Amino acid sequence: MRVSGTHYRTVWMADAATVRIIDQRRLPWAFEVMDLRTVAEVAAAIRDMAVRGAGCIGATAGYGMVLAAREAGTSEELEALAAQLKGTRPTAVNLAWAVERQLAAIRAGGAEAARETAERIANEDAAACAAIGRHGLRLLEDAAARHPGRPVNVLTHCNAGWLAFVDHGSATGPIYAAHAAGIPLHVWVDETRPRNQGARLTAWELVQEGVPHTVIADNTGGHLMQHGQVDLVITGADRVTRSGDAANKIGTYLKALAAKDNDVPFYIALPSSTFDWALREGVREIPIEQRGAEELMVAEGVDAEGREATVRILAPGSPVANYGFDVTPARLITGLITERGICAAREAAIGELFPGGGQ
Amino acid sequence: MRVSGTHYRTVWMADAATVRIIDQRRLPWAFEVMDLRTVAEVAAAIRDMAVRGAGCIGATAGYGMVLAAREAGTSEELEALAAQLKGTRPTAVNLAWAVERQLAAIRAGGAEAARETAERIANEDAAACAAIGRHGLRLLEDAAARHPGRPVNVLTHCNAGWLAFVDHGSATGPIYAAHAAGIPLHVWVDETRPRNQGARLTAWELVQEGVPHTVIADNTGGHLMQHGQVDLVITGADRVTRSGDAANKIGTYLKALAAKDNDVPFYIALPSSTFDWALREGVREIPIEQRGAEELMVAEGVDAEGREATVRILAPGSPVANYGFDVTPARLITGLITERGICAAREAAIGELFPGGGQ
Repeated sequence: MRVSGTHYRTVWMADAATVRIIDQRRLPWAFEVMDLRTVAEVAAAIRDMAVRGAGCIGATAGYGMVLAAREAGTSEELEALAAQLKGTRPTAVNLAWAVERQLAAIRAGGAEAARETAERIANEDAAACAAIGRHGLRLLEDAAARHPGRPVNVLTHCNAGWLAFVDHGSATGPIYAAHAAGIPLHVWVDETRPRNQGARLTAWELVQEGVPHTVIADNTGGHLMQHGQVDLVITGADRVTRSGDAANKIGTYLKALAAKDNDVPFYIALPSSTFDWALREGVREIPIEQRGAEELMVAEGVDAEGREATVRILAPGSPVANYGFDVTPARLITGLITERGICAAREAAIGELFPGGGQ
Repeated sequence: MRVSGTHYRTVWMADAATVRIIDQRRLPWAFEVMDLRTVAEVAAAIRDMAVRGAGCIGATAGYGMVLAAREAGTSEELEALAAQLKGTRPTAVNLAWAVERQLAAIRAGGAEAARETAERIANEDAAACAAIGRHGLRLLEDAAARHPGRPVNVLTHCNAGWLAFVDHGSATGPIYAAHAAGIPLHVWVDETRPRNQGARLTAWELVQEGVPHTVIADNTGGHLMQHGQVDLVITGADRVTRSGDAANKIGTYLKALAAKDNDVPFYIALPSSTFDWALREGVREIPIEQRGAEELMVAEGVDAEGREATVRILAPGSPVANYGFDVTPARLITGLITERGICAAREAAIGELFPGGGQ
């Protein structure tokens, strides 16, 4: 998608030994790319959230395995580097998926295969998001037809935009497709505490693409839905079970409850790499990452002079807990928007679209 | 309640012409009192949220009318000063209630009656919260009995603590009563964006009283309830209709939905002055205050050197909307904890406890 009018992906190879990423930690204050030349640097970039989002993490790990294939002298060393990458973010299923796919490719075809496979992973991710956009477009067309004369109001949580993938985004795929098709749109952007990915990343994306939007506190969506100001909710997911339970950024479950209570359609947009076919009962089976207290205790921004600055928003003496994700049960999800089409969040419907787990 | 071991109320008369308040905007970074010597200063303190919370606003407005009785030369001037106070915060019903009560008192007994009535309003507020604590204590005793060997986990949203009243607090009333009774407790404190009253005020109160607690992002409560980590929710309210619909800080409705979905009891604690007997259907009838964009765009805290500082957390170019409150429908509320006892959030049950609207 566009950054000041120029097209970018979130991650690519700058040369055979260099993975280049957009350093998302500095957005929206500064747009900077960052070069990663070792597996350790790639792992740190994932762990420290210079890159974040299911597809972007997967693609970055895929490119990281290109470096791993160069660094490793033995298959034991390769396994160790793979484990290092996989250990960075426990909840994102795309990460383990990309690393495993690369391990198999490297075992079969060596370093050359690693480079090809990394590009394939990235291209497939971009293509999947583009397809999600085409399928989801129909939902926004329908909503526009139901409410002629005013913009369609979409609410989204966190950033499942192109910054979370290689390009286009999952939750934003339908939004960008509808915007391109001339459908009048307005997006409610949850700021998404504690890291503010909505306020910082989704809002920044929408500014770059010229999509009308309004940033709101995470507490707000229920009130808007009670008053008919949300036509549909679309969020991404970090992991979806074969029965349609969806782990996504903490707070997604609360929005799904509000959508259900107000008859607002609630969709999860995901490339099929986000499915974890081994799991069924999301609330019980999906491990939820606890992150550092610091994320909740500080706010990052810019000071009055426009310099990046951090303030401590919590007084000393109070402990904090920082859960990264929650699980939205399938019963609250109207449908899943995938690269193969839209289906109900039900085991049978998912299985019909992805027989044999998408194989 | 205690501040560094010394007992305070949130508002009192320092002398016959001076209203003294705790300036809550500087908490938890600094504990400071502030003197208000004109109605305009009182109105500004309420509007700028130096004082906030239903009971505290009501008591401050009551004391503000003592100054109004001194300032006004005619009954028209008195009415104008009353209107100035009433116009500061549209959602808080206690504000209009206290001002009207004072208008009647002043008409009947002049400035002397104003002073007496102001003290009576403050004392009644403190007594009501103490009674709410005694009644709500039973709920925490029951929860402790159901879960022996571990603390009772209470979740609260925003600050309905003693800082929001004159003393004790509504939602915190039962918590402080249970803590005093030796019941092992742990409180999940929603940080409560955009103004962070949970992280700043409720957490500070609990530190001062020595009550174990953990601050969480507003997005977190649903996940905790899914995993059995919340035994009951208690929040305050800014306005409750005669049928039990409750306007409270934005985001309360989302927690009520999660509580319902996970069979967690959800209580609203309120002194009866918070009832608006004229209203029945909360979502439709209660006006919801929209506040300035600035609150959402900045975060207040302290910098690395401990100096108070503000950072802008939103990039330029994105509009924001800042709704102050939402309405939790009575069907999601397990019960109302009032100074007269606990009742169902149903018109008949409320009417039984408060026949004739509490007259």
